[in-house]
Amino acid sequence: MRSVVIRDGDLVLEERADPIPGAGQVLVAVKAAGLNAADLLQRRGFYPAPPDAPADVPGLELSGEVVALGEGATRFTVGDRVMAVVGGGGQSTRAVVHERLLMPVPNGVIHIAAGGFPEAFTTAHDALFTQCGLAMGERVCIHGAAGGVGTAAVQLAVSAGCEVTATVRDPARHADVTALGAARVVDPAGFADHGPFDVVLELVGAPNMAANMTSLASGGRIAVIGVGAGATAEINLLELMRSRARIHGSTLRARALEDKADAARRVERHVLPLLATGRVQVPISSTFPLDDVAAAYDAFAAGGKFGKIILTA
Amino acid sequence: MRSVVIRDGDLVLEERADPIPGAGQVLVAVKAAGLNAADLLQRRGFYPAPPDAPADVPGLELSGEVVALGEGATRFTVGDRVMAVVGGGGQSTRAVVHERLLMPVPNGVIHIAAGGFPEAFTTAHDALFTQCGLAMGERVCIHGAAGGVGTAAVQLAVSAGCEVTATVRDPARHADVTALGAARVVDPAGFADHGPFDVVLELVGAPNMAANMTSLASGGRIAVIGVGAGATAEINLLELMRSRARIHGSTLRARALEDKADAARRVERHVLPLLATGRVQVPISSTFPLDDVAAAYDAFAAGGKFGKIILTA
Repeated sequence: MRSVVIRDGDLVLEERADPIPGAGQVLVAVKAAGLNAADLLQRRGFYPAPPDAPADVPGLELSGEVVALGEGATRFTVGDRVMAVVGGGGQSTRAVVHERLLMPVPNGVIHIAAGGFPEAFTTAHDALFTQCGLAMGERVCIHGAAGGVGTAAVQLAVSAGCEVTATVRDPARHADVTALGAARVVDPAGFADHGPFDVVLELVGAPNMAANMTSLASGGRIAVIGVGAGATAEINLLELMRSRARIHGSTLRARALEDKADAARRVERHVLPLLATGRVQVPISSTFPLDDVAAAYDAFAAGGKFGKIILTA
Repeated sequence: MRSVVIRDGDLVLEERADPIPGAGQVLVAVKAAGLNAADLLQRRGFYPAPPDAPADVPGLELSGEVVALGEGATRFTVGDRVMAVVGGGGQSTRAVVHERLLMPVPNGVIHIAAGGFPEAFTTAHDALFTQCGLAMGERVCIHGAAGGVGTAAVQLAVSAGCEVTATVRDPARHADVTALGAARVVDPAGFADHGPFDVVLELVGAPNMAANMTSLASGGRIAVIGVGAGATAEINLLELMRSRARIHGSTLRARALEDKADAARRVERHVLPLLATGRVQVPISSTFPLDDVAAAYDAFAAGGKFGKIILTA
């Protein structure tokens, strides 16, 4: 197989032996693998892979075809189209994935889209619904709404019958996010004027937290899943008490297999039906062949994109 | 009736006309009414009563006997022994309470104990179980464990099969809290050494928050329900993400009738059986007749108490 390898902060392509699927695992011929902010952090040495993932091959999501089954793997058969969130190693022509982490790719969904689906939609679904218990009729604020998780979150919240206020820094991307169904797309500076919000999805970080707190409705929830703009926030605990609010933090990557499998089952049940009918889609910013991985990472780092950057194998 | 009245920051006893129970309400002859920190705040003008409570009569909990029923009130009959969390007005010889907020006083529990039960145990149960989902086998840290809510929380967590680390500032109170079943009682300064904790109940405030965060187990929860020592806390959001944690804030008083009634039903179901058998008890620090209300408030403000201060009528 050919794998993207992080070597001293550089990205190089290497020939490696195909991995052998162990018990309960599946060998996947990767067709498409989405880029995520965590890949860029890992390249810079800040976000080491968990023990069960290759240490030097980035890639947190993939779509492809089953080519071999490990002992006791029964959920899929050779040739099935599958996708998954993985702990690492997705940016490669082959990857072994535990069958409980795999989801079927619905008919009619191309690999380029499926390769950018699992991480973004699982993260967004887990934060909005599993953690925050988002429910029909609620008012949601989604910060950083033009990115991979942001575009997924806007579509999921709109599909669930919620009113979405999206914040997007780049004015050139406002129309794109409006097209996803947001009730309004605004600059981050003035978002609190559009509250109160029942749920706030924080993908940007500490700079929003003070206004997140003051714009929260009684019983409101904040899910913090990205802190690129800063991690240290001053929180007024009395305000938290008065609004009977809660603040969640989470990441997907470090979870135990059973937790990740639970999240995958919830996405299968609640999101795949919408992906299958086109009710939610994976906006693709650009695609790059695996050989152009460095250019793909540069495009990600440049920002201002709408939707996912996908490597194709 | 005779009522404690806050007039220009002073506490005076006043004769007032008995209130008339409205639809669904019950007139209670108050026998005992617990003091709470909120009463002292209200006396100083910082914690106004909600609109459905008398503005100038303090008292958030009471125990007594039903003396009259409003239209459509059917849960109790005249003579029943009842207790409740109320929005205010508990420190009086009569109070009207919506029947959905009332709980029966178990046989064998004296009014002095029942008058200090509702606020402390409802607050503790709501924070630990309803909000934080505390479950058997988990490790709990309870700050400010010698007070009304703290002593309730320690007993509830121990009864539910949890290991309790209690922090108590006054060394003279450590043995009392140990006797409630805490695995260890420690000075607040070093509590984090005894972590990790699955749940932290914060009754003191901001000074503990940094150590609360670092001592939290993966999937941990912090419930902030008291901030007497400070409300502004610096939170590391990346730490929150890494431990997949959440921080709750809440108060009971400002909730809607149905929310308070829900909380009362949960306490009836899950805590009253333990109160009835003596498995949980209301530690009484001291009692004062209603006429000595000023002395009771002074005793509360002096601190260092173990358990509740109760006014008797």
